Amino acid sequence: MRIAVDAMGGDHAPREIVAGALAAARELTDLQRLFLFGPPDVLEGELRACGGPVPANLEIRAASEVVSMDDDPLAAVRRKKDSSLVRAIEMVKAKEADAIFSAGNTGALVAATILKLRTLPGVERCAITTVMPTPYNPCVLLDAGANVDCTARMLCQFAWMGHVYAKHVLGVPKPRVGLLNIGTEEGKGDEKTRQAYDLLRRAPLLDFVGNVESGDLFGGKVDVVACDGFVGNMVLKTCESVARTMQTWMRQEFTRNPLRLAGAALLRNAFADIKKRADPATYGGAPLLGASGVSVKGHGSSRALAVKNAISVAMQSIRNNVNEHILEGIDQFVSVAA
Amino acid sequence: MRIAVDAMGGDHAPREIVAGALAAARELTDLQRLFLFGPPDVLEGELRACGGPVPANLEIRAASEVVSMDDDPLAAVRRKKDSSLVRAIEMVKAKEADAIFSAGNTGALVAATILKLRTLPGVERCAITTVMPTPYNPCVLLDAGANVDCTARMLCQFAWMGHVYAKHVLGVPKPRVGLLNIGTEEGKGDEKTRQAYDLLRRAPLLDFVGNVESGDLFGGKVDVVACDGFVGNMVLKTCESVARTMQTWMRQEFTRNPLRLAGAALLRNAFADIKKRADPATYGGAPLLGASGVSVKGHGSSRALAVKNAISVAMQSIRNNVNEHILEGIDQFVSVAA
Repeated sequence: MRIAVDAMGGDHAPREIVAGALAAARELTDLQRLFLFGPPDVLEGELRACGGPVPANLEIRAASEVVSMDDDPLAAVRRKKDSSLVRAIEMVKAKEADAIFSAGNTGALVAATILKLRTLPGVERCAITTVMPTPYNPCVLLDAGANVDCTARMLCQFAWMGHVYAKHVLGVPKPRVGLLNIGTEEGKGDEKTRQAYDLLRRAPLLDFVGNVESGDLFGGKVDVVACDGFVGNMVLKTCESVARTMQTWMRQEFTRNPLRLAGAALLRNAFADIKKRADPATYGGAPLLGASGVSVKGHGSSRALAVKNAISVAMQSIRNNVNEHILEGIDQFVSVAA
Repeated sequence: MRIAVDAMGGDHAPREIVAGALAAARELTDLQRLFLFGPPDVLEGELRACGGPVPANLEIRAASEVVSMDDDPLAAVRRKKDSSLVRAIEMVKAKEADAIFSAGNTGALVAATILKLRTLPGVERCAITTVMPTPYNPCVLLDAGANVDCTARMLCQFAWMGHVYAKHVLGVPKPRVGLLNIGTEEGKGDEKTRQAYDLLRRAPLLDFVGNVESGDLFGGKVDVVACDGFVGNMVLKTCESVARTMQTWMRQEFTRNPLRLAGAALLRNAFADIKKRADPATYGGAPLLGASGVSVKGHGSSRALAVKNAISVAMQSIRNNVNEHILEGIDQFVSVAA
């Protein structure tokens, strides 16, 4: 397998991206070629800083421009033709690489993927697919932000693509698929969600468990949750910010007196373990399912471990023929009247 | 002031509702009359169980039926004419009470409020208005679930009603008002949110700070956040469930060995303090702003303190003429072309 990596995208690029890519090239079997895109002198410097020999399957490819987090996605993809992102995706388009990984500007990766790779035949939109850690099982949530205005049919296709991902990448034999809603009863929610419910109930290839509330994401009741990108992105960001807010509260309260400080010291390892278990990096990147090719987005804050895991996720998608499986069932949803 | 209380709605009804109403009748000055709706024998029993004399301003009003959490809202309001909810709202409609409080079926309270009290002239929809505790300032979020399909104009009206509430009930001199979105830049989000942004930017009576992300809800940057009811409800439920999930993780990790158990014991008070600070009950109920009258929803899990605080919130809305202030600025948003 051959992976193209945008070495210049992400809050900790290029250092952590290069370190993660290097680890992947060294450790992941089946990784025949890893192409690292960016200014060669910069990338060579980073590789030297990592230490140790550079394996033969890692290759630097020159790209002089960088798509920044503030760039307008569409304009950046069109104009920055020599950027690490565009060069990397062009390589996938030319079938010289099997997948792209980027931790940079999400909108730009989505735009580049759609413009250059296109969607699979029959797939209306690509969906950012995140795997959320929970105390019980990993839960696949999609779309996490690629599409802000969705139709019922798109929601159904997301549900199907999530099913394929849970089954063929996470290894869940019979994924339970839910529709994110503000109540579990039939008839709840906005118009497109109610229509999607009707379509999904009749879908032959899915184990549709009905509406689920955001609380159910963490409860071990479902393996896949479909929603539109506006709501999905909102839910993800809310999760992150509630976790951060609870940390602020704890910091404020734990430092009030020496007894509490002592208690917090005794729990240091426990908090580190929780952080590890709750860390989205465990499941690596978020694949952009529905594209004609494999495109994986890393969290902007990705560090080396997350980068390596995301590359591994891209490889699993290829190895397990995710796109072929998506195609097998994408036509099971007939459009509803608006 | 005269408050009508649905004593039979809520997970802990009637016990906790009666206890909270009793505390309100005893402690809140200006509360001339508190009407407690439900089966008289049940309510009398609960009052006896609370102990102490029943103050003269507390009066039981007979209602034989109960709207349950599972009842279809509209059908319940239409058919259960002798329910504690419908009897209580009828009293507000007849101007024999100034406000209603219920911790029962949210949809039924919304339906009853709209059907019986109607919206204020010029107000398109009522919005469930919640006040979120944060480490910095209370943040008003609306709509939290009354309207699943909103227009841009409705979002603007929610923003205005939230402004009035923050200013005249929470006492924020110049509330900073934001629009909930998945990015802060102009042009982000779905269609209605983009249109609402344009309208709000030109609103003369508001301090509009632009788009805010769900993370900003807790960051002290805004006092009011407007969104549609689908998204608002999702965000609220996500907050609750992330907090619950973190508790699960902590419970699992803190009990792994004796050292951690000791640490957790030392932090018991700290966690109790956090729980108190993060408790939505601090701000009592969620008013249904935009109604011709005052209607306040308590969380289903409300206990006595939350009930008392919610009754106090209803009284503040009346005392500070919230509805008159809403009317003063409701016309500042002209509709945009769809």
